[in-house]
Amino acid sequence: MTGESTATTGTTTWATTAPAAGHLGREELDVLQTWWRAANYLSVGQIYLMDNPLLREPLKPEHIKPRLLGHWGTTPGLNFVYAHLNRAIRHRDLDMMYVIGPGHGGPGLVAGAWLEGTYSEIYPDVARDYEGLQRLFTQFSFPGGVPSHVAPETPGSIHEGGELGYSLSHAFGAAFDNPELIVPCVVGDGEAETGPLATSWHSNKFLDPATDGAVLPILHLNGYKIASPTIPARIPEEELVSLMRGYGYEPHLVAGSEPEAMHQLFAATLDRCLDEISTIQHRARRDGSVQRPRWPMIVLRTPKGWTAPSEVDGKRVEGSWRAHQVPITDPRQNPEHLRILESWMRSYGPAELFEESGAPVPRIGENNPAGPRRMSDNPHANGGHLLRALRMPDFRNYAVRVQQPGTDKAEATKVLGEFLRDVMQRNADERNFRVFSPDENNSNRLGALLEVTARAWDAETEPGDDGLAPGGRVMEILSEHTCQGWLEGYLLTGRHGFFSSYEAFAHIVDSMVNQHAKWLKVSTGLQWRQPISSLNYLLTSHVWRQDHNGFSHQDPGFIDHVVNKKAEVVRVYLPPDANTLLSVADHCLRSRDYINVVVAGKQPAPQYLDMEAAVVHNTKGIGIWDWASNDQDGEPDVVLGCAGDVPTMETLAAVDRLRGFFPDLRMRVVNVVDLMRLQDAGEHPHGLTDVEFDSLFTRDRPVIFAYHGYPWLIHRLTYRRNNHRNIHVRGYKEEGTTTTPFDMCVLNEIDRFNLAIDVIDRVPQLGARAAYAREALTDKLVEHRHHVTTYGEDLPEVRNWTWSPQ
Amino acid sequence: MTGESTATTGTTTWATTAPAAGHLGREELDVLQTWWRAANYLSVGQIYLMDNPLLREPLKPEHIKPRLLGHWGTTPGLNFVYAHLNRAIRHRDLDMMYVIGPGHGGPGLVAGAWLEGTYSEIYPDVARDYEGLQRLFTQFSFPGGVPSHVAPETPGSIHEGGELGYSLSHAFGAAFDNPELIVPCVVGDGEAETGPLATSWHSNKFLDPATDGAVLPILHLNGYKIASPTIPARIPEEELVSLMRGYGYEPHLVAGSEPEAMHQLFAATLDRCLDEISTIQHRARRDGSVQRPRWPMIVLRTPKGWTAPSEVDGKRVEGSWRAHQVPITDPRQNPEHLRILESWMRSYGPAELFEESGAPVPRIGENNPAGPRRMSDNPHANGGHLLRALRMPDFRNYAVRVQQPGTDKAEATKVLGEFLRDVMQRNADERNFRVFSPDENNSNRLGALLEVTARAWDAETEPGDDGLAPGGRVMEILSEHTCQGWLEGYLLTGRHGFFSSYEAFAHIVDSMVNQHAKWLKVSTGLQWRQPISSLNYLLTSHVWRQDHNGFSHQDPGFIDHVVNKKAEVVRVYLPPDANTLLSVADHCLRSRDYINVVVAGKQPAPQYLDMEAAVVHNTKGIGIWDWASNDQDGEPDVVLGCAGDVPTMETLAAVDRLRGFFPDLRMRVVNVVDLMRLQDAGEHPHGLTDVEFDSLFTRDRPVIFAYHGYPWLIHRLTYRRNNHRNIHVRGYKEEGTTTTPFDMCVLNEIDRFNLAIDVIDRVPQLGARAAYAREALTDKLVEHRHHVTTYGEDLPEVRNWTWSPQ
Repeated sequence: MTGESTATTGTTTWATTAPAAGHLGREELDVLQTWWRAANYLSVGQIYLMDNPLLREPLKPEHIKPRLLGHWGTTPGLNFVYAHLNRAIRHRDLDMMYVIGPGHGGPGLVAGAWLEGTYSEIYPDVARDYEGLQRLFTQFSFPGGVPSHVAPETPGSIHEGGELGYSLSHAFGAAFDNPELIVPCVVGDGEAETGPLATSWHSNKFLDPATDGAVLPILHLNGYKIASPTIPARIPEEELVSLMRGYGYEPHLVAGSEPEAMHQLFAATLDRCLDEISTIQHRARRDGSVQRPRWPMIVLRTPKGWTAPSEVDGKRVEGSWRAHQVPITDPRQNPEHLRILESWMRSYGPAELFEESGAPVPRIGENNPAGPRRMSDNPHANGGHLLRALRMPDFRNYAVRVQQPGTDKAEATKVLGEFLRDVMQRNADERNFRVFSPDENNSNRLGALLEVTARAWDAETEPGDDGLAPGGRVMEILSEHTCQGWLEGYLLTGRHGFFSSYEAFAHIVDSMVNQHAKWLKVSTGLQWRQPISSLNYLLTSHVWRQDHNGFSHQDPGFIDHVVNKKAEVVRVYLPPDANTLLSVADHCLRSRDYINVVVAGKQPAPQYLDMEAAVVHNTKGIGIWDWASNDQDGEPDVVLGCAGDVPTMETLAAVDRLRGFFPDLRMRVVNVVDLMRLQDAGEHPHGLTDVEFDSLFTRDRPVIFAYHGYPWLIHRLTYRRNNHRNIHVRGYKEEGTTTTPFDMCVLNEIDRFNLAIDVIDRVPQLGARAAYAREALTDKLVEHRHHVTTYGEDLPEVRNWTWSPQ
Repeated sequence: MTGESTATTGTTTWATTAPAAGHLGREELDVLQTWWRAANYLSVGQIYLMDNPLLREPLKPEHIKPRLLGHWGTTPGLNFVYAHLNRAIRHRDLDMMYVIGPGHGGPGLVAGAWLEGTYSEIYPDVARDYEGLQRLFTQFSFPGGVPSHVAPETPGSIHEGGELGYSLSHAFGAAFDNPELIVPCVVGDGEAETGPLATSWHSNKFLDPATDGAVLPILHLNGYKIASPTIPARIPEEELVSLMRGYGYEPHLVAGSEPEAMHQLFAATLDRCLDEISTIQHRARRDGSVQRPRWPMIVLRTPKGWTAPSEVDGKRVEGSWRAHQVPITDPRQNPEHLRILESWMRSYGPAELFEESGAPVPRIGENNPAGPRRMSDNPHANGGHLLRALRMPDFRNYAVRVQQPGTDKAEATKVLGEFLRDVMQRNADERNFRVFSPDENNSNRLGALLEVTARAWDAETEPGDDGLAPGGRVMEILSEHTCQGWLEGYLLTGRHGFFSSYEAFAHIVDSMVNQHAKWLKVSTGLQWRQPISSLNYLLTSHVWRQDHNGFSHQDPGFIDHVVNKKAEVVRVYLPPDANTLLSVADHCLRSRDYINVVVAGKQPAPQYLDMEAAVVHNTKGIGIWDWASNDQDGEPDVVLGCAGDVPTMETLAAVDRLRGFFPDLRMRVVNVVDLMRLQDAGEHPHGLTDVEFDSLFTRDRPVIFAYHGYPWLIHRLTYRRNNHRNIHVRGYKEEGTTTTPFDMCVLNEIDRFNLAIDVIDRVPQLGARAAYAREALTDKLVEHRHHVTTYGEDLPEVRNWTWSPQ
């Protein structure tokens, strides 16, 4: 049922394509073809059958699943490539991991893993026998079974086949610091239209041929997305070749549909590409070449739904968008369609593929690599197996000296940079730690890292360039998507990393975070998947300090986005100063299987806790700051809660002011580092019990809570608490633009004067002095606005504020 | 202070670059150079000065702003291009709009608008005189002034200069259906690294040279991002040319730093590009050519911070990353640096640029186009001016017949598709409506649109392709970023649109929505900006019906993301059936300056309201469904709230069940279409007052609320309500994968059986029958799980459920 056209190479521009005729001997060809037929048969079977898996009797409606769910279109191409990669692994003893962009071709990857035996090793119920085969088919896209896409459940994968765009950055992330690893990466022509994929081709400017592995991109043109044609398949070949050369690759074309010719051509092309990779690596490793190589890539053009029936009801199926999901939708109801399905499945010759027991015939096994050389069993694809903990310096050695809370100043992220520098240095030999950032490493004050490593850079350099080298471990590209994709690939293959971003622009990777959180949720439920290092975000250059930029750079909502994910996976930290940040960062780098979001400022700011106090405070995650409170003798009149560096400073400054007006007012300051402590113990593993919460926030006193982000989040986290009705939250409410740091607070009413007014308005027993104080504070706000709009800077008393010890 | 190198063209590959010598006469050259000097002077002045704007006295520390905030690096290049575009407009009488990717070059655009007079027309306080000049300088990046980036406040712009990546898709969005418009679009070499930009080059496959305008991309290589070099500036020219040709453009290079040579070269190149555009358009419009043209583009390579001091303190400034923001950071404190700044500013010759009055000299005016030909006054850049309402068919004509609530079935989005088809047809002559989707138009059941228009497609076609044409108005590219960018550009230039997306993948454009919401918030506060058509999202293929895909496609959090934005800008609708969807869609297409998010399913589902009832229900946005309630004689025992199609169905089915067990239980069903009705009247313009809220949800009865998305959102919206402590919310909690629709509900406990159990658990007066009913319902859950995991489909009673009228 395959198409009629023969294998073809392109015309003028495809000079690099290898000569193909006779590349494979008859035996080899037969092994490949048999393996491919088996994988295709198993793929169709998974989509359609719940019984009669080897067609030992004629196909009947009751053998067909009642709901047909899956994607056939991309699958035969993926299987074809799988078969050929296996041959290459066997011939060359390669360490290879397969990344699949069109991951909705899930049945193909499951079929491959089953043929290789890995699937049955991991899931003994799905053995390589008749019963296992039956189960293999039934479980696919079936309630209680396995999902239709490549997923954490799929052996050999680090890449969820859901949202498109990240295959290539995942592949590069896997290849970094794995010099012996080759990562063939299939990019679907639909996926190639996405933005993240379109720029991730440039990853080749960040790969060091001497110390990193190789990525072999395979752009798979099957011509259609869901319903429309794809751009890469519908531009002249010359243009596509030009595009790939422009991206810095040497493209090799394989196009056609006739299996034998295609096997010859693809095998020859793959061998040529692997030879080129080998040459490039030798040149860099043995000859010390520092020139950026032109890495090979393959353009594979095959019909969509290759080997499906060419027509159903007079309408084209193979080679058309109709093959995208389930090519024949109603064989259970339509006897003619049932017949077409049966004849399609029999076209693969199941009787020649499987033994009486249901096991694959030995010929198929001839194409399987051995043990961990099987792509479905490659240890890198279950990276936790390879994970080694980082050698960590003692973060206490980087402590900022704090003699008096709130008097000395420091730049929190700069201090963190020194700690990260030494983490980098201590693990230099292991080569298992990288930091990622969209060109903001220095802007975010992590510049110390460049004392011990460089920015990865394999493109041209010029005099005056600063700290660029092919082997650099600071990864900077102005693409949050690529940074995130690299980092995910790096973590999933068992290494460690750290992503620093402008807070507002973390939203660029919202959807990628979703997918990684979902991956973690599922994989932590699979015993055979080993824990991996957490995905650590430092959000800095945050909403309150966008001095150069303004409104477009102000958005603290990434936290809101993340906390919608499963509580077991998500952690959010708002360290108020440098020492708490150090302790939090140390904790995050040691943690596993989490998404840690840390928000911290980079500007000079008051420091509150010495290291000992910081460690104690972080261990609790939330706590009363006794030195700032005066309710030691009993219940407070008011609680001032705060989370985040700027809100903490404004809260303390408000306490300062209020003390002057109301020396007898009993105020309690509660600082929150670990935001999830606010939630119920039943909702989040870090959540406080109600008794604990009440002991901090009381059951009935007013609480003025100054929060770093959107104020509603605090309500969402605390709505079940006894005292919730008295919690009044201030936060960012989308006001302000390019202005001074303090004016930003005023515009959003989270400043010291407004917070003090909030207290006055909510504490009834303040008496006659309340009106006077309120007016004085309001006058201060007026004075501020006048001063800032006249002189362009904050009031000196604000700029120079430090905490006055009682 | 300009660099020493002369203008150069590249070597072999730049054959297309125009010959330059003598292209401009002396006079013309002088006009251009004078305009450019003035724009540069004004740009530096804005960054530094708060007094002495014309340097009539020696520069003193007190003339310098206390906080220096802004970006010089990209600005002189933007000004250079501005000057040349003005010349082209004058010579050719062009309708031109300028889109600036590196929008942090804000001072340049403001300078241009001021030189052209537009700025003073809009902001009379900033007149073209000495006082106005003083104000122009002071206001920039100053509290109470204007932001440092290009922003809604900037005349002539539709593009916020904050988050990078969307300039080119905005430019194409503006050019669609504006055949006379030319949109030069500067793409920064930093921005060029982003994913969204990298794929937006492909927009040329969707532009019809016959009926659309033209985009002239200008890739501006100034070599550095914040601190690192950029990829496009550090690959061989040959590779860059190959990349641009691969994207389908014909690149023209202009490189150098010596002003006179650069003026000649750029003018010649720009003329050549405009000639090519003209030829392409003639060929398509007069000769009817249907071949996709190879549009011209320009690569402009100039030093970063061009014309800045070449060195400060022995360190390179012009041509280095040090010129990115403020090249000299401390002139107020450092007298030597003050001297360098003064000599830098004087190098532009302010005395020759401005008259005694402070007005620009007449020579500058010679380069200004007249009236609305000025780019700062181009009407397309204030699109509301050009906006014409859509001719709308009566949505009531598309009504689904509903004789009995909950018995007939329909596919809501399919019905909507018919309505949209006729909107499309009625406005075909106006050419002011397009629909956008990442290849999901048909998958989302909006296929009827293709009866009256095609998918826009200017690439190759093949036999079997369906509904592709260069002038098509269904815009499909597998890039949510590009769809969103096109749509924003289209709306901001005064047209109408509709974006349909898989719900989960709307997160891909989270950050773009942020930026558009911020644009709307600011621009609605500017009287001179006219209202534009709302940005309308249809989120379908939603979390509850991901039958083919599973966990990776399940995320209802886009709503959560959007509601963090300013309440005045955001609307969220969850129509429960087809007629309510029609009415909502009609409302959204007529609205202005909002972001409307509409969530609706595409699968066959029960219908509840006939059109009359649907209109009434939508007008209220929330209401009691009397036909489903039995509390007519007084207060209910329990309220069942629901929002979203699937939760509504499950709620009604739960009511059905409960009626069987407890005929006397008084149940009230409240359905929510307009989610913002739940919020306080003080928080959102659509919010209910407490009295209204209490009249629906009572002050003390239990409320079981079934919500489409993450359940916490309902708490966040209602935490201040009197009855909040009794509101129990069910929603999506990240459970489930590829399974049946009903099983998805069960796994997230939002199904009819769980909802009924929730009611039983919260209504105390049910008596002895409660335990029996609870057990029966629990048995049903067990039966369901057994059935679904055995047979792969839902229980027949669930699949065939319809509402039983009382």
